[in-house]
Amino acid sequence: MPSSHTNKTRLVLTMGDPAGIGPEIIMRSLANLSKERFAAFTVVGDGPVLMEAADRFFKGGEFEVVDPGGKLPGCVPGKPTQEGARKALASIDEAVRILKRLDTPLKALVTAPVSKEMIAGVKPGFIGHTEHLMKAFSSARVTMVLTGEHFSVVPVTRHIPLKEVANSLSGTDILETIAQVVEGRMTISGKKDPRIGVAALNPHGGEGGKIGREEIDVISPAIEEARAMYPLIEGPVPADIVFYKAMRKYYDIVIAMYHDQGLGPFKMVDFSSGVNMTLGLGCVRTSPDHGTAFDIAGKGMASSGSMEKAILAAARAASPTYFGISR
Amino acid sequence: MPSSHTNKTRLVLTMGDPAGIGPEIIMRSLANLSKERFAAFTVVGDGPVLMEAADRFFKGGEFEVVDPGGKLPGCVPGKPTQEGARKALASIDEAVRILKRLDTPLKALVTAPVSKEMIAGVKPGFIGHTEHLMKAFSSARVTMVLTGEHFSVVPVTRHIPLKEVANSLSGTDILETIAQVVEGRMTISGKKDPRIGVAALNPHGGEGGKIGREEIDVISPAIEEARAMYPLIEGPVPADIVFYKAMRKYYDIVIAMYHDQGLGPFKMVDFSSGVNMTLGLGCVRTSPDHGTAFDIAGKGMASSGSMEKAILAAARAASPTYFGISR
Repeated sequence: MPSSHTNKTRLVLTMGDPAGIGPEIIMRSLANLSKERFAAFTVVGDGPVLMEAADRFFKGGEFEVVDPGGKLPGCVPGKPTQEGARKALASIDEAVRILKRLDTPLKALVTAPVSKEMIAGVKPGFIGHTEHLMKAFSSARVTMVLTGEHFSVVPVTRHIPLKEVANSLSGTDILETIAQVVEGRMTISGKKDPRIGVAALNPHGGEGGKIGREEIDVISPAIEEARAMYPLIEGPVPADIVFYKAMRKYYDIVIAMYHDQGLGPFKMVDFSSGVNMTLGLGCVRTSPDHGTAFDIAGKGMASSGSMEKAILAAARAASPTYFGISR
Repeated sequence: MPSSHTNKTRLVLTMGDPAGIGPEIIMRSLANLSKERFAAFTVVGDGPVLMEAADRFFKGGEFEVVDPGGKLPGCVPGKPTQEGARKALASIDEAVRILKRLDTPLKALVTAPVSKEMIAGVKPGFIGHTEHLMKAFSSARVTMVLTGEHFSVVPVTRHIPLKEVANSLSGTDILETIAQVVEGRMTISGKKDPRIGVAALNPHGGEGGKIGREEIDVISPAIEEARAMYPLIEGPVPADIVFYKAMRKYYDIVIAMYHDQGLGPFKMVDFSSGVNMTLGLGCVRTSPDHGTAFDIAGKGMASSGSMEKAILAAARAASPTYFGISR
């Protein structure tokens, strides 16, 4: 495809913790995906660490390395250090600067795994990629999406105790989550017109108020409002029906009211093939569905499957004509 | 198998609402299963209705009909009546009397679907089979099980609003549910030593108390106590892991903390092949996973698949040597 080659989509990747499996799964992914030539890659991280990983795992093809500076002497796979954590964080910040400068509205970032604990040790208050990127991009709300082979799932509330879910759930949260999903629906599903199912909160959808009133008071009004914006939304659908229908390709995307409602069914069938996606930043961010795996880092054992899926999902987000789908 | 033929396990079935699909799916099931000759069948219900269904749907084999009395003139499929509801209820009560007289500790009842609303119209306060049978058998606690092709699931709390789940959950409930599951494990799984996974309540199992304390305060102590009685119990396992492992046959039975936690994943893969099972009565009760289906009753359209599975599950519960499995 010589014509697409001349003006390729650029994807920005961060190396993650240099002592984790990030550098090797990035290089292995680029090697496996480079034949497709669908994008140009900028990998942000420690030059020597990335070059060593490239020597071992990358055969052919091309990519650009941006090192944010700061020496990282004697980085050993499997042995995380404060210097490594500092460089992982600096790489994320450098990636943000590069993305902000990119002259396109379609931007995508792929992040390899970091150790939250290690970064919190050098930057107190660090909670994770998402919160850090929200601050960097001045984002007031992000939506977390898990996309798998069978369907995608979007939890409205996330890491809060189950007892707080019902009271935390607001019509605004539901509506704004739906809005970000509708806006990012192509990126999530690869379809222009995916069907979206919104789960109920209570057993049997509350049975008309007999087993809880949130469907009547909060969820249904938000869905009604959302349907004016995008008609292919249905719900509230009881949780023991919505995933059944998603599994049979009736719903492409399920919006779940809380973490386990969505992730229980999702991980049951897409445990290791899922990709995390964050919408609502200044770019679409994707990441593989696993951690730093310090225990196997540098041994050439880590599978790059989830990272490759994360890169392909980012490419779909950043490319105006990804694999023939036009917007 | 002539020897088992002489001293067969007896299964008791109730017809359900005579205007529903109960009579026809019972007769179709008995016809399909009669070749196996694994049990003798007593069907409790309206004689003429059952005989008409037998004429249409039952070819060969044998069963016994017990009519609790009371005429039911002009019963029309699809047209539920008060007389029909009264007779459905009388059939359940008669089945209980028959079961109480049976001279074996292994008893099983298969109930065809009734209309709760219709029975509540002739017997105010009727909520459903389960509550009615609890009273009839003087049972203080029952455990509801859904068994499917992939795994079985047991919700500790059931039809209550999600916001009440955390506060309703007690160590006693969890422990007594586990005890009934352990006692009925052969019936549920067909195995002597099934592996049981107990789900956590909060995301990521509460992350050591950071996202909810019920795992530490309530669930773990109950599991510890239960392990003294039966060692093959694990948990609390985060909900996004326990069903993944159940799907891959690591867990045979999952004990869920609330309705949707269990039924979301279960119905996703076993929507129409599931069997409901009630433990803790004076007998094991099974029922198909659907309702009266008045709209298709009498048309010969109703599938007897779920009813057949309910009968086979009841046979496993009532037979000391079901399909070669010895106790």
